[in-house]
Amino acid sequence: MKLYFSPLACSLATRIALYEAGAEASYVEVDPKTKRTEDGADFRAVHPLGLVPVLDLEGGEVLTENAAILQLVADRFPAAELAPRDAHGRSRLQQWLSFVGTELHKALYVPLLDKAAPAEVKAYALAKAPSRLGWLAERLEGREFLLDRFSVADAYLFTVLNWSSVTPVDLKSWPALPAYQARLQQRPSVARALAEERERYLRTLERHK
Amino acid sequence: MKLYFSPLACSLATRIALYEAGAEASYVEVDPKTKRTEDGADFRAVHPLGLVPVLDLEGGEVLTENAAILQLVADRFPAAELAPRDAHGRSRLQQWLSFVGTELHKALYVPLLDKAAPAEVKAYALAKAPSRLGWLAERLEGREFLLDRFSVADAYLFTVLNWSSVTPVDLKSWPALPAYQARLQQRPSVARALAEERERYLRTLERHK
Repeated sequence: MKLYFSPLACSLATRIALYEAGAEASYVEVDPKTKRTEDGADFRAVHPLGLVPVLDLEGGEVLTENAAILQLVADRFPAAELAPRDAHGRSRLQQWLSFVGTELHKALYVPLLDKAAPAEVKAYALAKAPSRLGWLAERLEGREFLLDRFSVADAYLFTVLNWSSVTPVDLKSWPALPAYQARLQQRPSVARALAEERERYLRTLERHK
Repeated sequence: MKLYFSPLACSLATRIALYEAGAEASYVEVDPKTKRTEDGADFRAVHPLGLVPVLDLEGGEVLTENAAILQLVADRFPAAELAPRDAHGRSRLQQWLSFVGTELHKALYVPLLDKAAPAEVKAYALAKAPSRLGWLAERLEGREFLLDRFSVADAYLFTVLNWSSVTPVDLKSWPALPAYQARLQQRPSVARALAEERERYLRTLERHK
């Protein structure tokens, strides 16, 4: 399988999951501004909305959307135990994937990360932080992971919280969240994925100076 | 099971799914403004974020988030065939549930429906409509449903598109979308759920005049 990603974008979650699974995969970098891949091809031919992650499956079929891709990786590599297999656990996983995707990723962080978003848009998004992050912190209080063990929902949550440092979201207001970040960064899969994508992220910044 | 809902909110999708399944369920209305249930209880005691839908399962455990709740309903009532059971089909279902939840529900419609959102916020959201709805319309061109047959993703998409009439989103620009709405409204489950919640919606408006 082939993952289309942009450095430190939400596709980082899939890279973490693939590393956790020890999966063989190739990685194609998409420039977030030009929507071109490294060989100059137009990524919009792969996904018209220009959004990463995209997972290219065997036979050229592509899957989009983090929640779907992360569950597919978990299901293809069951030995890595990245997702509960019982119905109850799977519902909880889907709940957290959806919460991270809708309330945090789209409603809170996307407008804050968008340089083109007016101040009013950023303020509107930021006003949602205390309730969302407060509820999340309550969940993580005294827990190591969102579920009973590491899952793809943690890969996604870590990826999204990682954006805080370049936004006005100050996670220190909810001590359970920086503690969670610090714990997750100890995992070899997370540390490796983060280091590799950070380097590429800096190169992207350099390119667009 | 017990569904906490607000009239015509995204919880309508779960009602449609439950009607499709012929499931026995009870329905508790939550006032979207006061966050009180009909008997005056504080809904935030059930879900601190005050968001519907919430599904109260046996034993008092609650599940939140549309994507999780809809898949649970589909899985509990397999005879209704509301979700593919093969891995490939399930990935596609999750892709569409996630797309509707993130790109349409949260990024496009929530700011447009929010009376407290400033004009800049509404304009920012509305600017995303052509790409998102255009891509969706392309998918629905020549298809009856998002997948090969009716699924919970259609229940969710119908619910979200239904909000267009009270926003500046003009679906007529993408003829496949009003055609899809018209088709879906022919389904007894959708027609019944819509009629019931419309009546309750009007009563909510009346109450807050």
